[in-house]
Amino acid sequence: MNNKYGTLYGVGVGPGAPDLLTLRAVDIIRNADIICIPQKDKYSCRAYQIAEEAVPEISEKECACFDFKMTRDEEELRRIHADAYRRIKNLLTGGRTAAFLMIGDPSVYSSFSYIAKLAADDQAKKAEAKKAEAKEADVKMVEGEEAEDGCDASDTRIKVINVSGISSYHEIAARLGISLCEGDEELHIGTGNGNIEELLALPGTKVIMKCGKITGVIRECLRNIGKYRDITVYGVADCGLPDEKVYYGLEELPDSSDYMTTIIVKEKSR
Amino acid sequence: MNNKYGTLYGVGVGPGAPDLLTLRAVDIIRNADIICIPQKDKYSCRAYQIAEEAVPEISEKECACFDFKMTRDEEELRRIHADAYRRIKNLLTGGRTAAFLMIGDPSVYSSFSYIAKLAADDQAKKAEAKKAEAKEADVKMVEGEEAEDGCDASDTRIKVINVSGISSYHEIAARLGISLCEGDEELHIGTGNGNIEELLALPGTKVIMKCGKITGVIRECLRNIGKYRDITVYGVADCGLPDEKVYYGLEELPDSSDYMTTIIVKEKSR
Repeated sequence: MNNKYGTLYGVGVGPGAPDLLTLRAVDIIRNADIICIPQKDKYSCRAYQIAEEAVPEISEKECACFDFKMTRDEEELRRIHADAYRRIKNLLTGGRTAAFLMIGDPSVYSSFSYIAKLAADDQAKKAEAKKAEAKEADVKMVEGEEAEDGCDASDTRIKVINVSGISSYHEIAARLGISLCEGDEELHIGTGNGNIEELLALPGTKVIMKCGKITGVIRECLRNIGKYRDITVYGVADCGLPDEKVYYGLEELPDSSDYMTTIIVKEKSR
Repeated sequence: MNNKYGTLYGVGVGPGAPDLLTLRAVDIIRNADIICIPQKDKYSCRAYQIAEEAVPEISEKECACFDFKMTRDEEELRRIHADAYRRIKNLLTGGRTAAFLMIGDPSVYSSFSYIAKLAADDQAKKAEAKKAEAKEADVKMVEGEEAEDGCDASDTRIKVINVSGISSYHEIAARLGISLCEGDEELHIGTGNGNIEELLALPGTKVIMKCGKITGVIRECLRNIGKYRDITVYGVADCGLPDEKVYYGLEELPDSSDYMTTIIVKEKSR
């Protein structure tokens, strides 16, 4: 039993305010054996700081730091994620549980999704190997059958469970007192790395996350669109943090802003 | 002081599981004088049932029911919302607070946004009237100045505060163990009432909420798209409820499903 891996929870802690953690997130953090964070240390990790305010006892737990450097080098990224996954597997021996903290929600632009994918691949691969082995030994495998303790296949079963968190764009809308979509309006979400012009041309509400570097570019693009469409523009940098900034309207948008800036473009309602 | 209106909180209770309420939502529900719900009674109100499991003392509070009938008649809708807003104002006299419960998040396809808009309009209108009155009396108004007690303008200041909740599509992604968007992928959200074909043709991940009536139509549309694009399709009906159904792949999608069905279409990752 002791060889088995435990469970890795991908826990969204929301955009910044500690009371925006869900009851489930609090419970999982409180009961986890290990806390994993996507930063080189606790003190520079925003997700950890948020969680610590909501669950102070987190500071007594074992903490594993994963320095997910930002790089556009895909090979380098793959290596970083594979290393992280290997380390997490080691941490989870003996059936331990880990809570991997992240800002916002695990399903929206989160590095955690790469770790979850590696766990899924790993499991699929080993299941295949197990099947092939069984075929060779002429043993009929029943799908879903539990492997015996000590067996290679059972050893790879890291269970990954995502715990939803409030996404920054929901909280920004709440803070601004606006709706993102109503009736049959559409909502489109992208980042500053995507095709901004195409995204902004779509109908309904547009949300551009992590766009601090190009707020000036977006402003000019919106100035053009504003000539023939009636739009309202909001920008929020570092939502929920002490140095939060809110930009109302196109003219307030600066040339550049903090990395964690979100711009929301609404078509004026009829 | 007693003439003043209080605060209306639009509280998202998440998609279905009581432990997906945020700490803030629990706190606001616990401290509210009145609970407002968008149904004719507590027993048929899913948002109330979810909240009651998380905050059992809710059952001792005054509860105001608002039967937001679904209609496409815009005039009728306007009347329903105006009536609801008038009732809420009456409930909030004496500075009381009300928590208006809703499934998911208040900024995403929520009837509450219409109430919030009426409150904002009301406030803007009265501020205008106050300014005009002051001009007439040749009194210089300082913007943002507080009106005196008993004055008409201060009487209309219902404060509306939105409290973010987990949106169903985030929780569905968590349950399915998938990400909605990573890297520079886009995420597009619409409902079964929108232009489905155009939405499904967009790049990145597509989410179609409240599409139970037309799951068959969507399936056929996706079958066409699947001929030249590598897509993965998931459907979830009544996420988090006892009769939840999950459809994996195009072939499992039925001709029609429950109203609260969400379809997620992912482009297969490279």
